[in-house]
Amino acid sequence: MAVDAKNTFGASEDAPKILVPGETGFWVNTGHALPSGTNAVIMIEHINIIDKATVEIEAPVFPWQHVRKMGEDIVATKLLFPRGHQINAYAMGALLSGGVFQVQVYQKPRVLIIPTGSELVEWHETSPEQLVPGQVLESNSTVLKALCRDNGADADRHPMLKDDLETITQAVDQAVKGAYDMVCIIGGSSAGSEDFARPVMTSLGRVMVHGVTMMPGKPVLMGEISGKPVFGIPGYPVSAIVAFEQFVGPLLRAMQKLPPLEVRTETVSLARKIASKLGQDEFLRVKIGSVDGRLIASQLPRGSGSITTLTEADGIIQIPRDMEGISENQTPTARLLKPLSAIKNTLVITGSHDNTLDLLADQMRRHHDGINISSSHVGSMGGIMAVRNNACHLAGTHLLDPEDGSYNVSYIKKYLPGVPVRLVNLVMRQQGFIVPRSNPKNIGSVADLKEKKLRFINRQAGSGTRILFDYKLADAGLTPADIIGYENDEYTHMSVAIAVLSGRADTGLGIMAAARALDLDFVPIVTESYDLVIPERFFDTPNVRILLETISGDEFKERILALGGYGVERTGQERQI
Amino acid sequence: MAVDAKNTFGASEDAPKILVPGETGFWVNTGHALPSGTNAVIMIEHINIIDKATVEIEAPVFPWQHVRKMGEDIVATKLLFPRGHQINAYAMGALLSGGVFQVQVYQKPRVLIIPTGSELVEWHETSPEQLVPGQVLESNSTVLKALCRDNGADADRHPMLKDDLETITQAVDQAVKGAYDMVCIIGGSSAGSEDFARPVMTSLGRVMVHGVTMMPGKPVLMGEISGKPVFGIPGYPVSAIVAFEQFVGPLLRAMQKLPPLEVRTETVSLARKIASKLGQDEFLRVKIGSVDGRLIASQLPRGSGSITTLTEADGIIQIPRDMEGISENQTPTARLLKPLSAIKNTLVITGSHDNTLDLLADQMRRHHDGINISSSHVGSMGGIMAVRNNACHLAGTHLLDPEDGSYNVSYIKKYLPGVPVRLVNLVMRQQGFIVPRSNPKNIGSVADLKEKKLRFINRQAGSGTRILFDYKLADAGLTPADIIGYENDEYTHMSVAIAVLSGRADTGLGIMAAARALDLDFVPIVTESYDLVIPERFFDTPNVRILLETISGDEFKERILALGGYGVERTGQERQI
Repeated sequence: MAVDAKNTFGASEDAPKILVPGETGFWVNTGHALPSGTNAVIMIEHINIIDKATVEIEAPVFPWQHVRKMGEDIVATKLLFPRGHQINAYAMGALLSGGVFQVQVYQKPRVLIIPTGSELVEWHETSPEQLVPGQVLESNSTVLKALCRDNGADADRHPMLKDDLETITQAVDQAVKGAYDMVCIIGGSSAGSEDFARPVMTSLGRVMVHGVTMMPGKPVLMGEISGKPVFGIPGYPVSAIVAFEQFVGPLLRAMQKLPPLEVRTETVSLARKIASKLGQDEFLRVKIGSVDGRLIASQLPRGSGSITTLTEADGIIQIPRDMEGISENQTPTARLLKPLSAIKNTLVITGSHDNTLDLLADQMRRHHDGINISSSHVGSMGGIMAVRNNACHLAGTHLLDPEDGSYNVSYIKKYLPGVPVRLVNLVMRQQGFIVPRSNPKNIGSVADLKEKKLRFINRQAGSGTRILFDYKLADAGLTPADIIGYENDEYTHMSVAIAVLSGRADTGLGIMAAARALDLDFVPIVTESYDLVIPERFFDTPNVRILLETISGDEFKERILALGGYGVERTGQERQI
Repeated sequence: MAVDAKNTFGASEDAPKILVPGETGFWVNTGHALPSGTNAVIMIEHINIIDKATVEIEAPVFPWQHVRKMGEDIVATKLLFPRGHQINAYAMGALLSGGVFQVQVYQKPRVLIIPTGSELVEWHETSPEQLVPGQVLESNSTVLKALCRDNGADADRHPMLKDDLETITQAVDQAVKGAYDMVCIIGGSSAGSEDFARPVMTSLGRVMVHGVTMMPGKPVLMGEISGKPVFGIPGYPVSAIVAFEQFVGPLLRAMQKLPPLEVRTETVSLARKIASKLGQDEFLRVKIGSVDGRLIASQLPRGSGSITTLTEADGIIQIPRDMEGISENQTPTARLLKPLSAIKNTLVITGSHDNTLDLLADQMRRHHDGINISSSHVGSMGGIMAVRNNACHLAGTHLLDPEDGSYNVSYIKKYLPGVPVRLVNLVMRQQGFIVPRSNPKNIGSVADLKEKKLRFINRQAGSGTRILFDYKLADAGLTPADIIGYENDEYTHMSVAIAVLSGRADTGLGIMAAARALDLDFVPIVTESYDLVIPERFFDTPNVRILLETISGDEFKERILALGGYGVERTGQERQI
């Protein structure tokens, strides 16, 4: 109610004052202008309504109480914000309220993205089954378009072009003569005979930089045609992204006077030391999780083709060109790719690799939004060591004790004395020989490897599968020297299966799920216990509880059984140490 | 060149090996499949091309050198990422490369925003000049649409509705029966007689929350109609935004399983203590700058109508309901609204308010992208104190010494002993009486204030203008008791001008620019020196150098003169202390 404050002076609980609506008080709503003759407002909750013509107040008000003064906000000629201000939601409100209906803005740069490469196939014109070896689904242009948008630019995609100098030259020429402010040619940025990005650039304009001492992304090409920036982007997915993020994105933002993309960084500890080459900056993708309050980073595979190393990555560590890697006691800085809160809500699992861990991550998400699993593969012994070094929340192991045929317990006693841990079975699983379809070499036992002179692909030292293989080898009275390829090793079951699929090896020891995934055959050798080693102090944390509930649930077990080669009869059961 | 590694064994600088293209070596490009019979690649830079049929190598290669193994990246049945993963640029690449062309995603929520209020005017149907008192340009719906988009949702705007129960009810009813997942009614969320958001909600569904102990945004209304969330959003711009960001945005994100918006927070020091009301959480907008490595926050005006407090703000401090403000020695946490790098690139100017400071901020941006000025208004003495407390980079002051008529120097000697500072003139400016158009009361001198019983509006204690007024008062043989309204004070020249414009006061002392901005008249009284006090240690920092160059430039001086009431004859000159 709007009033003249002096009419309220003297009001108290003992001696309330009467106001007459329409005479000495006026009903008003929030935001309305004050009726003339009034200078204060009384909140409805402080008014006793006696009847339509009488209200009572029990306290005085002071002039201008609950009144917003005219012009509290914007007044003529006030500068709303200085030039170069980004027009976000707040700024739109300020402009409209201030009566500014038109503003000059920097134009969004228009980028043309030209994917090139005779090996490329349009994803919407094929299906994965129709691909023949040597063909590659074109995906970089989609990724780069999205990255352009993230940097405030509009991007169009040119239809794919074959490796042909003339057609690529024509397309680039048209683009720079047209409405585009920038051109990105994807593929052909190296110096090979069918790499045309450079010849195109030199014929139409000039090359300014070819090759940068960084990895991935080394063969990036930067030039200028008719005053417009033109990039040659390497075709490997991760190289393309790193080249874009280092050079294209920052230029797009500068063209719009946008501030640099805000990068969140944190100091991390390393799960294990990282090697890198002198002479080039390396952008290393890492998983990150928080263990005992420390952020622990573990390296993902380096390959510049592996775009999944970016979808899996929680962060990127840039190793400068003058360093030959980073040792365990250094604490490098990582650029975070996920919110810190998400990284802190991550369960760090390390040790032996098993396909069920991916499935576990997915299954936990089904009922618990936002929980993440970071699993890195360092072998069973690596997992035990990570537990000892406080570098994980839990570790997956399947370590056979050759003395008594038991799994894991004796290793825990030997390598984790004085570290209170619990041991829970995740799955029982079959290990065996992964062989091509129909087992053409008719492999049936370890002895066949020597007898039939088969090319073997091994697992890395310290992995449970390597220990199992060495045990089976000794059992058969053989030595490593008897096995062709014993010294070639891979880090995961899937890599072993791929070696068999591609013909690099005749067989390797691994799990049935890996063989099935690639439609290979499998010769079972042993059933082993794949267990989780969980330090006592993490056993009752919310995320570990969720994990234990999840693996004890029927949904998870059914999904495991569908993979083949697994048994769930002990899944979720605690084992005696 | 692709080769069989064993054909290279034994090559050295002294005894190079010859390879025959097409027979023992095959030209390949990056990304191509290996020809059969080869297992390694030699980089072009390590090959001496003798002629078309002969090349030479000077070092052996090992098998699989420079070869990416098939399936380095994605292999069948590998989980690309668990459910609930946000499809960003990287994820699109992984999906396409993995042959996944369709994915199930959470639908973007569709929101209908209904602006209500009989006082509202469509901005595109009017111009600021046509507005009559009581009319308000509708801007909230534009702001909320943009905020919906920032939170991953699609929003439509309903045409504005008058304060009418029936039409608002119909609009909401249609929306929830249609394709909308959420409705936001802007305005009318309080409990007044023309506040219809609540009656609409109770008639169609139910109200779950009405009123939250927070400020701004208190009268927010949350309910549900036919299972769809419906919000009543307060009509004051800042209240609308706070209510949205606290409740609507988080719900929209949860509906899409998006992680909460990442909020960057930093610990800040306060330029001066902040009061707040017990019993409600307060969201206080602050300017933040980095001085001597400390982040210094200073309060912006509180009014919930002032959307410019959000465009100006660098951060928001949330004062919990159980605290009565924050004292100078506490270090609260501020949510940052700008990148930390931008905040660190901010020149913190405090002290007396002058319109030229806005102009200076804009002018510096003209030639220096990314530099920010944070100016807060605490009066001339407040500025001197801030210099003493290391709470600013420089301070603007115009402190008259009544003894000798000099400006600033004697105050610096008295209040900053032992603090090495430099003094640079920003402008000479006229102070005088701000009066309504044509000066109806014919004000000519301080003596008129008493004689003509004029209602005066004062400036706050400690401001240079207050000191000037007190000096002029004594000079005229008057005391504060002689002046009606001496005890009413404002913090800026513009606020004084607004008080005169709105008729709250007959006159106040202020600068000509403020009078001109509101088309008021001005009676000059004195020309004063408005100077910048710059601590010696900041004098040669890059940002202060830019400021000094800017104010010495002709562009800046011309813009100052165009404001009226200023002289630039000493602008940029250092003054002797």
